[in-house]
Amino acid sequence: MPIDPVALTADLIKCPSVTPVEGGALQLLDKLLSDAGFETWRVDRGETPNLYARWGSKGANKSFGFNGHTDVVPVGDVDAWTVDPFGAEIRDGILYGRGATDMKSGVAAFAAAAVDFVRDTPPDGAIVLAITGDEEGPSTDGTIALLDWMEAQGETMTACIVGEPTCPEKMGEMIKVGRRGSMTSHFTVTGKQGHSAYPHRALNPLPAMARLMDRLASHELDKGSDHFDPSTLAVVTIDTGNPATNVIPAACKASVNIRFNDLHSSASVSDWIQTEVDAVAADFGVAIDVVTRVSGESFLTPPGPLSDLVSTAVEAETGIMPELSTTGGTSDARFVKNHCPVVEFGLVGKTMHQVDECVPTEQIHQLKAVYARILRDYFS
Amino acid sequence: MPIDPVALTADLIKCPSVTPVEGGALQLLDKLLSDAGFETWRVDRGETPNLYARWGSKGANKSFGFNGHTDVVPVGDVDAWTVDPFGAEIRDGILYGRGATDMKSGVAAFAAAAVDFVRDTPPDGAIVLAITGDEEGPSTDGTIALLDWMEAQGETMTACIVGEPTCPEKMGEMIKVGRRGSMTSHFTVTGKQGHSAYPHRALNPLPAMARLMDRLASHELDKGSDHFDPSTLAVVTIDTGNPATNVIPAACKASVNIRFNDLHSSASVSDWIQTEVDAVAADFGVAIDVVTRVSGESFLTPPGPLSDLVSTAVEAETGIMPELSTTGGTSDARFVKNHCPVVEFGLVGKTMHQVDECVPTEQIHQLKAVYARILRDYFS
Repeated sequence: MPIDPVALTADLIKCPSVTPVEGGALQLLDKLLSDAGFETWRVDRGETPNLYARWGSKGANKSFGFNGHTDVVPVGDVDAWTVDPFGAEIRDGILYGRGATDMKSGVAAFAAAAVDFVRDTPPDGAIVLAITGDEEGPSTDGTIALLDWMEAQGETMTACIVGEPTCPEKMGEMIKVGRRGSMTSHFTVTGKQGHSAYPHRALNPLPAMARLMDRLASHELDKGSDHFDPSTLAVVTIDTGNPATNVIPAACKASVNIRFNDLHSSASVSDWIQTEVDAVAADFGVAIDVVTRVSGESFLTPPGPLSDLVSTAVEAETGIMPELSTTGGTSDARFVKNHCPVVEFGLVGKTMHQVDECVPTEQIHQLKAVYARILRDYFS
Repeated sequence: MPIDPVALTADLIKCPSVTPVEGGALQLLDKLLSDAGFETWRVDRGETPNLYARWGSKGANKSFGFNGHTDVVPVGDVDAWTVDPFGAEIRDGILYGRGATDMKSGVAAFAAAAVDFVRDTPPDGAIVLAITGDEEGPSTDGTIALLDWMEAQGETMTACIVGEPTCPEKMGEMIKVGRRGSMTSHFTVTGKQGHSAYPHRALNPLPAMARLMDRLASHELDKGSDHFDPSTLAVVTIDTGNPATNVIPAACKASVNIRFNDLHSSASVSDWIQTEVDAVAADFGVAIDVVTRVSGESFLTPPGPLSDLVSTAVEAETGIMPELSTTGGTSDARFVKNHCPVVEFGLVGKTMHQVDECVPTEQIHQLKAVYARILRDYFS
């Protein structure tokens, strides 16, 4: 009998798995998949719970993977919800609860599709599910840990779908074939404190900071690439905290967030930033310290067999030919791309992270149908 | 019998006249001057106590004025003092206490010189003492109030000395014949908040602020004038307070302090700032609000009869020919200059506002002698 992906989503919503709590979600999936003939491993690292499941033989020529997460962001203001965030209530055909779109429905849809598929039409190959309990948190021991473990164990995927919500408004309208990279640089300009009536006896860090931020913000990183919008740089804060108008402060801080496309890497962007920093530091005689944190490199799976496979399935099940997009923030696909071709396809993401997060139950059925068709086509 | 300016300074130090408290200081002077034949008026405005005293007739052709203040800055860390800040202790010929240099000694020296002078050699003219209890505070109801009242009453000065400390290291080395003006402009740049991954949907105020501060800080206001160093502009703070690196903030604030010489007025500087603001606001499409507070206009009493008079007296009593300077912050001379020619001469200011503020008693005697010689020469 087919697995009902709506019931499975509801069961997962009832597990209060706010990052980094497992909440019973991975246990529930572990049992479902084990009962269906999958081999399963808990690949926890540090405090982070992760689940790996494979049907079929290790290292098969065709080994189709699904990646997703069962952790959810906090409920926020619980009084603002009109439903129990972990109640999985269905009202007028809409399922409510934290994780309803991001992304317990996605996990339920691919788990249900995979279980039905191996039972009804056992493929010549393997099906892999790599599910983490930390995508919404620091993500340092989540999908990365699963991929590290797979590498060490000789576990492979020949293609992978990340089941995150990808559609802005309508089910089926968008597949993500890449994402921009993201990095944040934190700057500290240090001069010498003094009296504002005697600026020549001080070394004011603020003009140097203003010049540096102006140079960074007014620079065009690129005009976009074949598959990406132009890279962007946003100065997000400049702070001094000097309440005294007769005092020149000793130091000033600022932070800049950069979203870069496939024409750059975090290393090349860092090199450019350092060149600007060195020039301004020399011009003003100040010291400028830079600390950069890279959230993820850009990735692109160029349009080809995998995106064709997914597009065909989406069009067949939803009647819409999806756009191949690289917009949006980061996702765990930035890690999977080092392992095998990867694209992302999932539900409409409009209510993710919001109060009264919800999903039409019909869309969960559609999503399962898309994933099922992808499996059939991939192994046919 | 001559008035001992050291004993008078000590008596004034014992009055705890921390701004805006009168502390008995003006009462003490009022009695001393009344007893010596001065007419006196308390010219209090709001909470601020002020004393006006005149010997001789109103509107005399020669009416020499002294301006000073009896209020003092707070003691600060009383435990750091090695003496009672209001004890007026003399140790090894040095008088200690809050106000010892700034400027109860100055007030005592000119009051003592004036009383002795009118008693021993009554001049053909008037001697005016305009003494405020608020020079260290907001100064809005201090010397300004005295001058307003004088104007209303037909009281005049034909020349004036402000008795603030003016000598950096050695008694007699510097007269102030002018001061730069001071103003502070506070800027708020307002854009539109958004996600840092989608800067085109937001309007980031920070690049505009960086450009504006760069333009203001890198502009040369002037190269100095005959009697003044170049005007200066110091960006003293830039603040956003945005802790989220994935958020473009809605607004940013900054403050700029400007010390301007006699080539500018606060109005001309404000006009220039507004031009820069308008240009940047137009370039970036942001709103920029400016609020400017003017502490004082620049003033200059060009070298001439008054500075010659004072220089001659200083050289005669100290053996040093003083430099005519326009350096330093603001003083109440910025108000007096609208009334009559004014210069400043007083003690060595090294310990002003500090713990263990002190003055060699010998310097108080010298200062009284300088003021006395000025009176003799002025009326001779």
